[in-house]
Amino acid sequence: MIQGWLTTRRDLGAVSFFAIRDRSGEAQVVVEDERLREILAGLQVQSVLSVHGDVVAEPRARSGVEIHAREIDVLSAVTEPPPFEINRPVLKPALDVWLERAPIALRHESKRAALALTASLVAAYRAALDRRGFVEIFTPKIVGAATEGGANLFPVEYFGRPAFLAQSPQMYKQIMVGVHERVFEVAPVFRAEPHATTRHLNEYISLDLELGFIQDHRDVMALVNELLDEMMAEIAITSGRDLASLGVTLPAVPDIPVVTFQEAQQVILDEYGEDARHEPDLSPQHERWLGEWAAR
Amino acid sequence: MIQGWLTTRRDLGAVSFFAIRDRSGEAQVVVEDERLREILAGLQVQSVLSVHGDVVAEPRARSGVEIHAREIDVLSAVTEPPPFEINRPVLKPALDVWLERAPIALRHESKRAALALTASLVAAYRAALDRRGFVEIFTPKIVGAATEGGANLFPVEYFGRPAFLAQSPQMYKQIMVGVHERVFEVAPVFRAEPHATTRHLNEYISLDLELGFIQDHRDVMALVNELLDEMMAEIAITSGRDLASLGVTLPAVPDIPVVTFQEAQQVILDEYGEDARHEPDLSPQHERWLGEWAAR
Repeated sequence: MIQGWLTTRRDLGAVSFFAIRDRSGEAQVVVEDERLREILAGLQVQSVLSVHGDVVAEPRARSGVEIHAREIDVLSAVTEPPPFEINRPVLKPALDVWLERAPIALRHESKRAALALTASLVAAYRAALDRRGFVEIFTPKIVGAATEGGANLFPVEYFGRPAFLAQSPQMYKQIMVGVHERVFEVAPVFRAEPHATTRHLNEYISLDLELGFIQDHRDVMALVNELLDEMMAEIAITSGRDLASLGVTLPAVPDIPVVTFQEAQQVILDEYGEDARHEPDLSPQHERWLGEWAAR
Repeated sequence: MIQGWLTTRRDLGAVSFFAIRDRSGEAQVVVEDERLREILAGLQVQSVLSVHGDVVAEPRARSGVEIHAREIDVLSAVTEPPPFEINRPVLKPALDVWLERAPIALRHESKRAALALTASLVAAYRAALDRRGFVEIFTPKIVGAATEGGANLFPVEYFGRPAFLAQSPQMYKQIMVGVHERVFEVAPVFRAEPHATTRHLNEYISLDLELGFIQDHRDVMALVNELLDEMMAEIAITSGRDLASLGVTLPAVPDIPVVTFQEAQQVILDEYGEDARHEPDLSPQHERWLGEWAAR
């Protein structure tokens, strides 16, 4: 038996072929019985089916096998055409149409793969930290005061008292170094900033860590370099199907270039002609230039 | 070298003993050098130290070894006595004192162990679901409308538009069954309810899951029973030190008794003498009684 979503259907003279997707991938099903072909006749893709049948070797099928259906139960019938062609290799609707129908659009193979890859990357991050003795923590998201400066906070109505959404677990993770020495958290953080910049989203999942007994920030930078390297190595093993669906090749993580603030300002001057040597911080454009320079 | 927190100190005639705690546990250190004994003299417990020395077998030490100090660096000196005796087996301050000084109190062995156990339970939950093909999801916490009824929501000021903190990932996880078939999330949820009840906290970490292709709720109940069983089995292996610190024995997870709503009402009548047979729901007291009855 296989249970899943109808993804494609072709009706030939005396036989129908359809594909059904479950969490393990897609299978091809062959239907010859006239009664079963009638059941399928009115169904749109994304209908949910339960299929009993025989698995038969078929070299022309992508998986090397196909299922000859003996019984089909329609668990949930989709009778109207979906708002866009969900089975095309590339999902093409305009962004607003896409967002309006996200519950359907997220079923597109490229979206499914991206979400599965996110989960695998987080799992690899946790595993790499676990090997180093880090303990996972769970810190409050409704807080009484700002954690990083006073700006960009979302106020929450907390029983008539002022409260805010946490911008970062910074203070809590520092406290928890006193308890566990090495800690990490994977949780949402909240920034009340405009979306249309290269900075923060209003809400995103932050991969945080904090550790005691280091010499300085260079130890943390080296750790982050190692983590990225191990995360890429891990998903290369666990996420072959998702990477293939997305058509992406994983980068080899090099020793990430380290420059001082003064050196960065010099690069910006030498390579991009802007004198930022008296600025107290880098602008988003400076960060883009430095990224471009480092990627060469 | 060992780096960690000074937990106890005893000064005898010509020698000092102290214990130092890092993430792996506690070690006993012996100091004979007069210069090093002077460094220690003014320090309160929770001072942060870096100790170079020789590891020597010592059957009388709890770990079977002790460290003979050759050099001690004080990384962070605590000079005032802590607000309560952090090294006592039981932490005794009143709740308000405890909460006021939580960053120190959380370093108590019983608190450290409880937090480490939480992390291990979550890891075991994820591992058990991973074995069953569940995919982790990360859903929005700022939402435009209530997910479970309209009450008990925390309003958020979202750029002048109404928004709320999510009470549950319910809608999102149902959507994601269409994408991954089996999904789970470990994330905060928010309930604007009074704290002083046996129901929800305002903010807690919810272990959520959702799966497709089940017969009915009994499949979910059986899965939850299995998960609890596997979580207990896992932490029995991984968390021996934490369980010992807390002095707790893990329950064997039995087949959790299943009763219908009518049967539950009958139990309440027969065992506790209250006729709730015409009520539409169970009260917290009813739930306590049923728990008591099931635990027999």
